[in-house]
Amino acid sequence: MTDTEDATALPGPADVAKAHERIAPHLHRTPVLTSTFIDGLTGASLFFKCENLQKTGAFKARGASNAVFGLDEEQARAGVATHSSGNHGAALAFAAGRRGIACHVVMPSTASEAKKAAVRSYGGEIVECVPSTSAREAALAELVDRTGAGIVHPYNDARVIAGQATCARELIDQIPDLAAVIAPIGGGGLISGTCLALAAEAPQVKVFGAEPEQADDALRSLRAGHLIADDAPQTIADGLRAPLKPLTWHFVSRHVADILTASEAEIVAAMRLVWTRMKIVIEPSSAVALAAILNNRGTFAGKRVGVIVTGGNVDLDRLPWV
Amino acid sequence: MTDTEDATALPGPADVAKAHERIAPHLHRTPVLTSTFIDGLTGASLFFKCENLQKTGAFKARGASNAVFGLDEEQARAGVATHSSGNHGAALAFAAGRRGIACHVVMPSTASEAKKAAVRSYGGEIVECVPSTSAREAALAELVDRTGAGIVHPYNDARVIAGQATCARELIDQIPDLAAVIAPIGGGGLISGTCLALAAEAPQVKVFGAEPEQADDALRSLRAGHLIADDAPQTIADGLRAPLKPLTWHFVSRHVADILTASEAEIVAAMRLVWTRMKIVIEPSSAVALAAILNNRGTFAGKRVGVIVTGGNVDLDRLPWV
Repeated sequence: MTDTEDATALPGPADVAKAHERIAPHLHRTPVLTSTFIDGLTGASLFFKCENLQKTGAFKARGASNAVFGLDEEQARAGVATHSSGNHGAALAFAAGRRGIACHVVMPSTASEAKKAAVRSYGGEIVECVPSTSAREAALAELVDRTGAGIVHPYNDARVIAGQATCARELIDQIPDLAAVIAPIGGGGLISGTCLALAAEAPQVKVFGAEPEQADDALRSLRAGHLIADDAPQTIADGLRAPLKPLTWHFVSRHVADILTASEAEIVAAMRLVWTRMKIVIEPSSAVALAAILNNRGTFAGKRVGVIVTGGNVDLDRLPWV
Repeated sequence: MTDTEDATALPGPADVAKAHERIAPHLHRTPVLTSTFIDGLTGASLFFKCENLQKTGAFKARGASNAVFGLDEEQARAGVATHSSGNHGAALAFAAGRRGIACHVVMPSTASEAKKAAVRSYGGEIVECVPSTSAREAALAELVDRTGAGIVHPYNDARVIAGQATCARELIDQIPDLAAVIAPIGGGGLISGTCLALAAEAPQVKVFGAEPEQADDALRSLRAGHLIADDAPQTIADGLRAPLKPLTWHFVSRHVADILTASEAEIVAAMRLVWTRMKIVIEPSSAVALAAILNNRGTFAGKRVGVIVTGGNVDLDRLPWV
């Protein structure tokens, strides 16, 4: 069984259980926090699963770790590679560093110094490219030709989805009797894992997705009944700009109850609300879920709802409200 | 037994156990977080007890809740009162609100709108006064004469100290085999509670205090062997400006292994380090403990150290590094 076959197959419940056992020694079992004040605003009982407190500051450490620690020895020796301008690159570098193998990350030359520094701090090697899809793909292909490194896609990868699924699996173990779980949708790795875990272990829990109004390709795909890829949407929720891909569309189209949206101003307001009342640092992409709940109080009022807080990697010198 | 006698007696281990049982239904058992990165910087294994994630955003909810829920029915009917320009006022209002009794908080007219809003959000009633010690004491005396409310001092109060002690008691239950615990010292309620809890339940754990260089009255008192009260020290760590009082000096002078200090710049750097790497919002007063550890690596290297993160109430529009 080669690495590539693993990555493109549809993951199942057994893959999630295996992923969980595999990555647990390397990651935090993140806490679940509550806020009486925010419950009062929403009328719901919200349980925030804090992946901003995860290693690398984002849930991405789960999928990346599952991919890296699932490699056979031969593939591992050649290292791993990906393209990412965000949390996945740092997460893959972290996981590769834990296993002691090479990690190459193709990043646009325009990526912030903070993001490059995060990759390097975990021992990842950055390959810069012009900021375009074709340049990125060419750079990654050249890199793989040269090094033999195994590609770990940020989300259109069965191993990554199975890894992200461990988050919802943990949440339902920590908090019983949830009526729903809501998670942001970017490329769809987290929501796919959430669907995968809950369909198997708690099928009565409804799964909701949350998207920025300005990057609502998943919502439009769901309405159209087929995959629509956005072209470079602009939103402050920079982790949610990526389009769905076939593997993640599979889960979104089959398992997601609904997709709810929020405006840019609502995202910033929800982000600030969480910082102010919950005392945790969350990035704009994470705030979309709460903003969507606040926009749809009737859907969640009186219910126990899990909210996946995806990450906390922000530039503290450039806060959106300052 | 009157309320006043309770407040001025020296609290003992039995008071801590009783406090813990009394307040547990009203408060969070706060999580303990770790950071591989910060452990690397310090050479120690640090366990951050996150009271910034406590109700009201600070450990003060513990002491205030113990005082309020320990009142007999007659005293409770008359309500409670205190003076506070910070977290204690909000915490007392929170606790009084939970019990359904009145809470009066004397605050200087110069207190920030955010701090006044916090007290009001929990149902507390604010009595403004000129920002001076004599005006504050006169306002509080007048208020107590008029309402019969019981005074709950922010820290020179046995019930408050016993409540704060529950934090360290919880920490040693969550994290075994600590060699030391470090906590900031302002008026000394938290450090006194920490000494009280650990002396009884884990006497092998050393207790360290942390102070701003610019508000080091506890350090100078310890060196002098008698209580020295600072007069209005200036530091960004606004929760640590209060002087020790007789009850807290009792514990500091008998149980604290050493008091370590940090400069204003070191406090801000440690605060930013925690926000950046741990993704939690902490206030400057909380950062003093980590800053002191970074200044004294040799004391803590190779050891398991509990660090009490005292609170997360900051003005997000006025961050010290922006």
